[in-house]
Amino acid sequence: MKDKTFLMIPGPTPVPESVMMEIAKHPIGHRSSEFSAVLERVYSNLKYVFQTENDVFVYTSSGTGAMCAALENLVNEGDHVLSLVLGNFGNRWAKIAESRGAVVEKIEVETGEVIDPEVLRKRLAEDTNKEIKIVTLTHSETSTGAANDIKTLCSIIREHGALSVVDGVTSVCAMECKPDEWGIDVLVSGSQKGFMIPPGLAFLTANERAWKVYEECKHPSFYWDWAAYRKSTRANSTPFTPAVNLFVGLDKALEMIKEEGIENMNARHRRHAMALRKAVKAIGLELVVKEDKNASHSITSIFPPEGISVPDIRKTITKDFDIVVANGQNALKDKIFRMGTLGFVCDRDVISAVGALEATLHKLGYKFELGKGVATVIAELGAK
Amino acid sequence: MKDKTFLMIPGPTPVPESVMMEIAKHPIGHRSSEFSAVLERVYSNLKYVFQTENDVFVYTSSGTGAMCAALENLVNEGDHVLSLVLGNFGNRWAKIAESRGAVVEKIEVETGEVIDPEVLRKRLAEDTNKEIKIVTLTHSETSTGAANDIKTLCSIIREHGALSVVDGVTSVCAMECKPDEWGIDVLVSGSQKGFMIPPGLAFLTANERAWKVYEECKHPSFYWDWAAYRKSTRANSTPFTPAVNLFVGLDKALEMIKEEGIENMNARHRRHAMALRKAVKAIGLELVVKEDKNASHSITSIFPPEGISVPDIRKTITKDFDIVVANGQNALKDKIFRMGTLGFVCDRDVISAVGALEATLHKLGYKFELGKGVATVIAELGAK
Repeated sequence: MKDKTFLMIPGPTPVPESVMMEIAKHPIGHRSSEFSAVLERVYSNLKYVFQTENDVFVYTSSGTGAMCAALENLVNEGDHVLSLVLGNFGNRWAKIAESRGAVVEKIEVETGEVIDPEVLRKRLAEDTNKEIKIVTLTHSETSTGAANDIKTLCSIIREHGALSVVDGVTSVCAMECKPDEWGIDVLVSGSQKGFMIPPGLAFLTANERAWKVYEECKHPSFYWDWAAYRKSTRANSTPFTPAVNLFVGLDKALEMIKEEGIENMNARHRRHAMALRKAVKAIGLELVVKEDKNASHSITSIFPPEGISVPDIRKTITKDFDIVVANGQNALKDKIFRMGTLGFVCDRDVISAVGALEATLHKLGYKFELGKGVATVIAELGAK
Repeated sequence: MKDKTFLMIPGPTPVPESVMMEIAKHPIGHRSSEFSAVLERVYSNLKYVFQTENDVFVYTSSGTGAMCAALENLVNEGDHVLSLVLGNFGNRWAKIAESRGAVVEKIEVETGEVIDPEVLRKRLAEDTNKEIKIVTLTHSETSTGAANDIKTLCSIIREHGALSVVDGVTSVCAMECKPDEWGIDVLVSGSQKGFMIPPGLAFLTANERAWKVYEECKHPSFYWDWAAYRKSTRANSTPFTPAVNLFVGLDKALEMIKEEGIENMNARHRRHAMALRKAVKAIGLELVVKEDKNASHSITSIFPPEGISVPDIRKTITKDFDIVVANGQNALKDKIFRMGTLGFVCDRDVISAVGALEATLHKLGYKFELGKGVATVIAELGAK
């Protein structure tokens, strides 16, 4: 059915109509007082959403841009970077560090697993010469749906003295994430995720410890340069022409986020993800992330039942119900499918998604007690 | 008057309603076949607009992003870069090269002047050891409204053997620019200019000579990396999540550009700029760029009459006529104002702008023959 598509991929995510209406407005001049007023609200509300006293920079770029903005302001050739890798996006940190000429070491885990804090503690304890300068890590790993215990990991990194650089692309707005309180030194995120606006903006916040490392960076990248962004952000401006329409949409979305409250928003994402996980298990499917405590609250990865293919599931749920779910990435392609419950998602959406998934599997010949998933999700969501 | 603003700044520029309507649609998945079809059209039409057989990459970024995408894929520490500087944006090339550790030499001209091909020829002839690896230059210098004779300059650079890297941010779609025919090695542009869509996308095309220099680049930036973009572009995809809504708008805008025809579009910009220049002179104002042949066809910079301030002109024309014109930048702030006739601009817009400028100056007490500017612009536009 035309115009009925509902995105349950890890991004872009659904966008509220009121936000789209703002984006549809003719761009205004980016050096006008009108736009400066938009920026003043946006910058202030972003501090609330990121739960930080530090500046939050907004880049006109994809989320990967903010990841580059982190490492390209910190890494010099030959620096030792430790990357904690849960999947594709953990690996992206490593690749960016390598592109700067860093010596990159990885701690990798099996698909669906998370970093064991004791493994990290042991590795950092061995680094008696403090050669490891930066540790990159992922809060919610979009490729697997696993989520690290960032709070514990960052406290271990802080004890060692290295800088913690965290990918919060699919966690900020969806999962509790407190950079100031937890000692996250650099945190990045992206607009087409929990922020409920289309792709094209990315965010970065850095603390004073990170700024000290920035000061030692020989060649900070011109486009991402923190000093230029700090100066402009504090003047309610931007160093370069920003994606004006997306900023105006962000202004509206942040107003909605403030109204809901960041704690409530996090709690909503947790409820939805946990209800979806229970429902999927009730249908008899296997989750990629086994334990609830290791699960992302924004993306749920699921193995298809034996004999039913991921492409068939994706095609059928889109054709019959206008719901788009994501395939696995790289080696996981056609092995798993991923359902996002990220951003502008209400209880009704989760119920209908589980219903549509049941109908899809039923049509494709999978044998199970029809209605069991929906019954589970309703019961689970009822228990607010 | 609310919602009546007409932007005559060098960008963002006016956006057609049909393009805004496309942008207002809910984002679609960027890995869908639907979006891939959008990209196929966009990539093909961009080759037409850029008049090149080479790939045109689209970055989710501001125009400065594409400038970084040029030099951050070419420059190694210690490389010798010659920057031809007409103003602020010519200087930006130099700053980006410096941020990569290049040894930067500049040829600078007075405000409103352009590069004398003989000066360039002489300097390059002196470089007998071929130390100069890259020459950066600007087609239309947005800060002054001067435009270089890119064709001649690039042929001189080609004779020497250095790589020519051209800022076409406010020239592509507005001024004749033929990279393949003229031997421009790298050309960049931005979306919120002649492309008639809001800010947030930037473009880059590079030829085989540039690719050879890329191969020698030690640390190409991860986000801008040409190899990643070439691979994705040829597969009708993008390496990272693109600003989906802007791409869909671009698809529509490129369709309109093709319908008008790139030669007609260039001719329209020339007519508008030349008519505006004549009208401004008829009113008795002084142009920053003295000779028509050195003038940009997208931006016209004007000195205010004695005794009338730039802020007063800008405030009045906005308040009374909902037209926004730009101030000068840096040292030129409050010394000049700049009028854009870039992108989605028709004859009526140019007539009304001159009329509004006349009314504004009249109100502010400037003595001149009222109607002279409009009469001039009408006569000039009539001579199609």
